[in-house]
Amino acid sequence: MLNKIILLLSLQISLLGTTFGGNVLIWPMEGSHWLNVKIIIDELIKKGHNVTVLVASGALFITPTTSPSLIFEIYEVPFGKERVEGVIKDFILTWMEHRPSPLTIWRFYHEMAKVMKDFHMVSREICDGVLKNEKLMEKLKKSKFEVLVSDPVFPCGDIIALKLGIPFIYSLRFSPASTVEKHCGKVPYPPSYVPAILSELTDQMSFTDRVRNFISYHLQDYMFNTLWQSWDSYYSNALGRPTTLCETMGKAEIWLIRTYWDFEFPRPYLPNFEFVGGLHCKPAKPLPKVLWRYKGKKPSTLGANTRLYDWIPQNDLLGHPKAKAFITHGGTNGIYEAIYHGVPMVGVPMFADQPDNIAHMKAKGAAVEVNINTMTSADLLNALRTVINEPSYKENAMRLKRIHHDQPVKPLDRAVFWIEFVMRHKGAKHLRPAAHDLTWYQYHSLDVIGFLLACVATAVFLATKCCLFSCRKFGKTGKKKKRE
Amino acid sequence: MLNKIILLLSLQISLLGTTFGGNVLIWPMEGSHWLNVKIIIDELIKKGHNVTVLVASGALFITPTTSPSLIFEIYEVPFGKERVEGVIKDFILTWMEHRPSPLTIWRFYHEMAKVMKDFHMVSREICDGVLKNEKLMEKLKKSKFEVLVSDPVFPCGDIIALKLGIPFIYSLRFSPASTVEKHCGKVPYPPSYVPAILSELTDQMSFTDRVRNFISYHLQDYMFNTLWQSWDSYYSNALGRPTTLCETMGKAEIWLIRTYWDFEFPRPYLPNFEFVGGLHCKPAKPLPKVLWRYKGKKPSTLGANTRLYDWIPQNDLLGHPKAKAFITHGGTNGIYEAIYHGVPMVGVPMFADQPDNIAHMKAKGAAVEVNINTMTSADLLNALRTVINEPSYKENAMRLKRIHHDQPVKPLDRAVFWIEFVMRHKGAKHLRPAAHDLTWYQYHSLDVIGFLLACVATAVFLATKCCLFSCRKFGKTGKKKKRE
Repeated sequence: MLNKIILLLSLQISLLGTTFGGNVLIWPMEGSHWLNVKIIIDELIKKGHNVTVLVASGALFITPTTSPSLIFEIYEVPFGKERVEGVIKDFILTWMEHRPSPLTIWRFYHEMAKVMKDFHMVSREICDGVLKNEKLMEKLKKSKFEVLVSDPVFPCGDIIALKLGIPFIYSLRFSPASTVEKHCGKVPYPPSYVPAILSELTDQMSFTDRVRNFISYHLQDYMFNTLWQSWDSYYSNALGRPTTLCETMGKAEIWLIRTYWDFEFPRPYLPNFEFVGGLHCKPAKPLPKVLWRYKGKKPSTLGANTRLYDWIPQNDLLGHPKAKAFITHGGTNGIYEAIYHGVPMVGVPMFADQPDNIAHMKAKGAAVEVNINTMTSADLLNALRTVINEPSYKENAMRLKRIHHDQPVKPLDRAVFWIEFVMRHKGAKHLRPAAHDLTWYQYHSLDVIGFLLACVATAVFLATKCCLFSCRKFGKTGKKKKRE
Repeated sequence: MLNKIILLLSLQISLLGTTFGGNVLIWPMEGSHWLNVKIIIDELIKKGHNVTVLVASGALFITPTTSPSLIFEIYEVPFGKERVEGVIKDFILTWMEHRPSPLTIWRFYHEMAKVMKDFHMVSREICDGVLKNEKLMEKLKKSKFEVLVSDPVFPCGDIIALKLGIPFIYSLRFSPASTVEKHCGKVPYPPSYVPAILSELTDQMSFTDRVRNFISYHLQDYMFNTLWQSWDSYYSNALGRPTTLCETMGKAEIWLIRTYWDFEFPRPYLPNFEFVGGLHCKPAKPLPKVLWRYKGKKPSTLGANTRLYDWIPQNDLLGHPKAKAFITHGGTNGIYEAIYHGVPMVGVPMFADQPDNIAHMKAKGAAVEVNINTMTSADLLNALRTVINEPSYKENAMRLKRIHHDQPVKPLDRAVFWIEFVMRHKGAKHLRPAAHDLTWYQYHSLDVIGFLLACVATAVFLATKCCLFSCRKFGKTGKKKKRE
């Protein structure tokens, strides 16, 4: 009897988590992006897969470790950590100095264009580091990967996958102007209620907001097309046929988007898009009683009830029952930890999607924003008091928490499911919209509309001619009759 | 030890299927629609909910049964079964006689308009049967329902839910012209690659196909608006405020669509749409060895190896390892049973979505079509031979089967999950797009485009005026100078 139950238990366990070992290749991005992808990698390894991560020798945050199922394939690039650090620093400082607003948008794009040039140069050296390294490419080919998971903020993951003849998947928060999702992924973004990235707008827009949003979309599209255009020839060269960055990106089997409807405003999407926001969150572990993360010298005025730590696990801190509020720069990872644990936020956004993220949380009633450039300690204190003392903030944070936790499948499990799906089926072609086979004017039915207008114009022209002809004829007959 | 394991097992089971008893109200539709909703009802009861089904006294297919958790609330309507039967018969015969094609589309809509008038009359009497029955409405109010699940092909489920102050969910295959999903549900349907309902087109369209598709959408929209328009005043009267059918339908919390991407061509949708096609399918039970479903007199020529049955379970038959092909009229339920078991099809479509459904299966390489109006026994035999002997049909049917079975959560579980979600959270507002708050011209950004065009026109006008003014001024000065 005992044996039978044990058999039953193990059978159940094996059914719950059917495993098969496969080979997964990762094309990562630096910083917080890496933290997010790392969680997926850990779960893939837990499920019995072997994972290889492609890391540039100049990588900043990605620290290679050793494990039997996890290989870090380091390739040479002609730059060091300080170069990457410099680009990231420039990026952040420029953004913070010229934070986009309706009045400063041109200046912002102008300044960012300079930084992006540097960024693209580093990106290209990273690409070359793999694609021009024949020995490495040969080794990767022999490794029989079944799928490549790419963070498309660094281009080239897609090229590597195509060169290895394997399907690829994106892990993405957003692309500049949502251009990649919109033009390369074919997702409709109606500007009337889907706020443009970096606009800090919500889905409730006044007429002026909608005008701003409409202009934002077109302006950002233009910026993306200008700044990323040079990749088209790089992609064509690398793949040995005329193509574009966008066309190649459109070949992604699945797009794992790092948000969900607890965070985003509802908007249209396609069956090959999966919203896995918060996949890195987990229940909190217990913490020491009082604590403070601080790297500098211990201030002499520090009270006896405050302990300083070099690093503390943010997730465990937010999950502590006494966590009343979260002062955050508004990164997606941090916001998701706050949602996961139902903690209201004081947002001090700095760059990239952070102002947008805080705008979302404000709209959902779970955050107050403080401007990092102008704030005083009184502003911060007031904001903290507001989110702690006004019950609506906690209630809304708890509502988002309930929505986040009440999904048919957890975000991480869904992310891994679709990666494994692509491995099992060698793709996910049944989820790919036929929009990819159309030109832009076909996609918008412009040729059809033009044709139908031409038909109507011809019909009207012929009808008018006929009318005029009959009028003239009958008119003449009438005149003749009168004369007779 | 044994006790511990048993405890562990039961804990695991209770975690897998956490139950809480709630009250669910069902607004059903006749025929195959009812078969599909019945499966959801059975699962809801299994999970501990109490279900009440509203049934008209003249209902044709819905046979009330007794069970402690399932109540059939029968309300009086001024018509009998034969009336419903008559309308359905008219509907089918008219459709089969005037099957829509590019050349016959006008005649088809003209004839269908007559049938739809009858259908709407019956629909309205059904609505009145509940809404004007004060005693019943009072009883329903007292029953404390938490959600209403409605098949919107019979209108009014939404009105009942709003009058009871509870959220409602739709269970839907499609609406005429997809108008309900498109205009009331706010789902984008790009006519360039999403084939219009009843067009029998696929997602791979030539220029001519796209012209046809574009016209189909607009024609069907027009037909829907004309034929369903009278419901607007009915809805306004019933709800005691000016509203429309479409506005009210737009309040659905979740749309459970009875297809999935094994069957549909990938297209945009919204977060409150859930594709649960094939939720009624299940593994086959064993069958007697040879069999034949036949209601009439036993033919004298029948071979000794053929047995006649009054009814046989189609799902078990299709799941039999020796099932080589499925001759089907192309109903969604039947097609899903074939997909579930991986059986190629010979489609003999008759009406409604059936020609479309078979067109989908043909495009996916799992079916051959035979025209019911013109077919000979040789045609049927040839079609059968093709799908049985050409291996691609079986391969494609098996591919669809693999796609169908490889989902993170089974369709029925997802359907029940979202019904329970709406019960737990009193709605699913976080999935509702803000598009519902916009007028049609705001939704399409027409006011924004108009405003921007006006701005550009004004700028051009002012620039021209300035130019002309300076030209004239400088011109005069020049002349003056010359004279001097």
